Amino acid sequence: MEVKIALIGCGTVGRGLLEILEDKRAQLKDAFDFEPKIVAISDLHKGSILIPDGIKIKRLFALLDEGKRIEHYYGEGNTAELINPLDMIEQCDAEIIAELTYTDIKTGEPATGYIKKALRSGKHVVTSNKGPAALHYKELQSLARKNNLFFRIEGTVMSGTPVFSLFECGLTGAEVREIMGILNGTTNFILSKMETDGLDYAAALKLAQERGYAEADPTADVEGYDAVAKVVILSNVILGGALKPEDVKREGITALTREMVTAAKEEGFRYKLIAQTRKAGAKIEAVVSPQKLPLTDPLAGVMGAQNALTFDTDLLGKVTIQGAGAGKTETGYSILADILAINRHLGKKR
Amino acid sequence: MEVKIALIGCGTVGRGLLEILEDKRAQLKDAFDFEPKIVAISDLHKGSILIPDGIKIKRLFALLDEGKRIEHYYGEGNTAELINPLDMIEQCDAEIIAELTYTDIKTGEPATGYIKKALRSGKHVVTSNKGPAALHYKELQSLARKNNLFFRIEGTVMSGTPVFSLFECGLTGAEVREIMGILNGTTNFILSKMETDGLDYAAALKLAQERGYAEADPTADVEGYDAVAKVVILSNVILGGALKPEDVKREGITALTREMVTAAKEEGFRYKLIAQTRKAGAKIEAVVSPQKLPLTDPLAGVMGAQNALTFDTDLLGKVTIQGAGAGKTETGYSILADILAINRHLGKKR
Repeated sequence: MEVKIALIGCGTVGRGLLEILEDKRAQLKDAFDFEPKIVAISDLHKGSILIPDGIKIKRLFALLDEGKRIEHYYGEGNTAELINPLDMIEQCDAEIIAELTYTDIKTGEPATGYIKKALRSGKHVVTSNKGPAALHYKELQSLARKNNLFFRIEGTVMSGTPVFSLFECGLTGAEVREIMGILNGTTNFILSKMETDGLDYAAALKLAQERGYAEADPTADVEGYDAVAKVVILSNVILGGALKPEDVKREGITALTREMVTAAKEEGFRYKLIAQTRKAGAKIEAVVSPQKLPLTDPLAGVMGAQNALTFDTDLLGKVTIQGAGAGKTETGYSILADILAINRHLGKKR
Repeated sequence: MEVKIALIGCGTVGRGLLEILEDKRAQLKDAFDFEPKIVAISDLHKGSILIPDGIKIKRLFALLDEGKRIEHYYGEGNTAELINPLDMIEQCDAEIIAELTYTDIKTGEPATGYIKKALRSGKHVVTSNKGPAALHYKELQSLARKNNLFFRIEGTVMSGTPVFSLFECGLTGAEVREIMGILNGTTNFILSKMETDGLDYAAALKLAQERGYAEADPTADVEGYDAVAKVVILSNVILGGALKPEDVKREGITALTREMVTAAKEEGFRYKLIAQTRKAGAKIEAVVSPQKLPLTDPLAGVMGAQNALTFDTDLLGKVTIQGAGAGKTETGYSILADILAINRHLGKKR
């Protein structure tokens, strides 16, 4: 079954998604009767194109690899008309919009506007963008429901490692009372290196920057803002809360010293930047802060840039999932997983 | 939506399931439009009853708690006719049969016969019984498909901790190349106690027996037969193999000494009884044996009676799930999870 998809944003995640779709074309058709057709792509820096008959992914890659703009898809003498993303979302006949633009955690824009436009034009939305999910989940989800559409966000927490689909399918009927996780790979890498290699904070941060885990300005990671966005999403999507980022108590890892990390280790503990949210009566309480975990805690063993998350449930006790928290292919996969979930539904409707 | 269910077997798992259905009646109706009606129960030791209008769970519990037989549900002067399980499966108008009898890992009977009868009478089957799943999965699954029915087995591995539903929903589209797990809580408890409390094997086994983790005859656990059954199920259901238990190389934990455990710890390793299965070309190779894991392995931190399992995938790398591996409520929940998965499907059909 052909499924028409448009990509708004074509950076690392978009490339990861397209590579998977190209590499797995035959398997996806065989296993899921799923034949993706990319009908439109729009990227702030790389240009845009709308081709109702479908964009050839290999030709697009060749173009991008040569540093050419997307509207030169048909050759430089045959430039396609530039279309702004909002018009493209409305005009293209995609069934699913993959919203893959950059995260702005303060405003959620321009992504939130793109998502609203898509849902109002009758198109499902999948995204790994934390901004809209952290700031406007309820509004966007209710807009999707009203239009009988899906708004899916697997990649916003722990990239493609299943979190929301684990909750939807694997914990159905159980009540999640508390969620506790290591949701930021950069800080976990830094803390791991401080312990295993005896580095001080500055040296571990420098190493994280050299390895590409931390940005030149590491504030969003080391001060806990990235983890705050993710814990807000978990609070609102899984625990049914209505939190905003400013409702979360936040403390980063910049005050942790090598001496503190070493002393904790000698006592049989390990520092982790923990994002935690729990039901407290009718309220949801969320916090991001460094915690000294006993080594017996499933989260204590999570080292390097890995992520992990523990659901505390009434019927199953604690269930922990551990896996990648970032990466081109891993996050690209999160988009595919959400598209395949929608594909199952489309297959039943047609 | 009313869903009619029959229980074949009413021991610990059946009791766990019924307690959840009773305790969560209102939530299950609200959240999933799911109203279970138990129309028949048959237990080898406790008797049987068939009531098309539905069995009152509280009255049944009162009866069982007084040590009375199930056919005395209407009072001792009003004994219902005893019906053998095969006839009951055929005669009752349940949509779903919960097959909850004891595991016979050598023959898979009588459970396999019950399951075939159910599938041939047009009834979905959910089970936590490892016998039929380890010995006859392909045959039973193809019988189910032929009759447009479900045969679901979440509880056969790691009780209610999501394994098959995680694979179905959370890893859709990714290829699992290898599975590696701690699938037997008894041996993991014993090995944990040998390390943390410095016990020798015999003392740790005795403690496991006192705590109810190990049986009087611990062979099935400590010699690895239980883990073999589970790794066969994973091989056949997830990797698409056609293994039999005798195809799995097997070594138990009885040859491990306190000295070996201590020496491993000093080198930064930990012994675990690991069940492992992987694709090797067109073949599936499975083994159960004690392995010395580095402490950085996500499975190394799994202590006590907990279970855990790592999927090694092409698109996501390693994804590890950790949780309970046994328990009345946990395994009862596995049956509910499978029933709710079928309920989603029934809801769409009706």
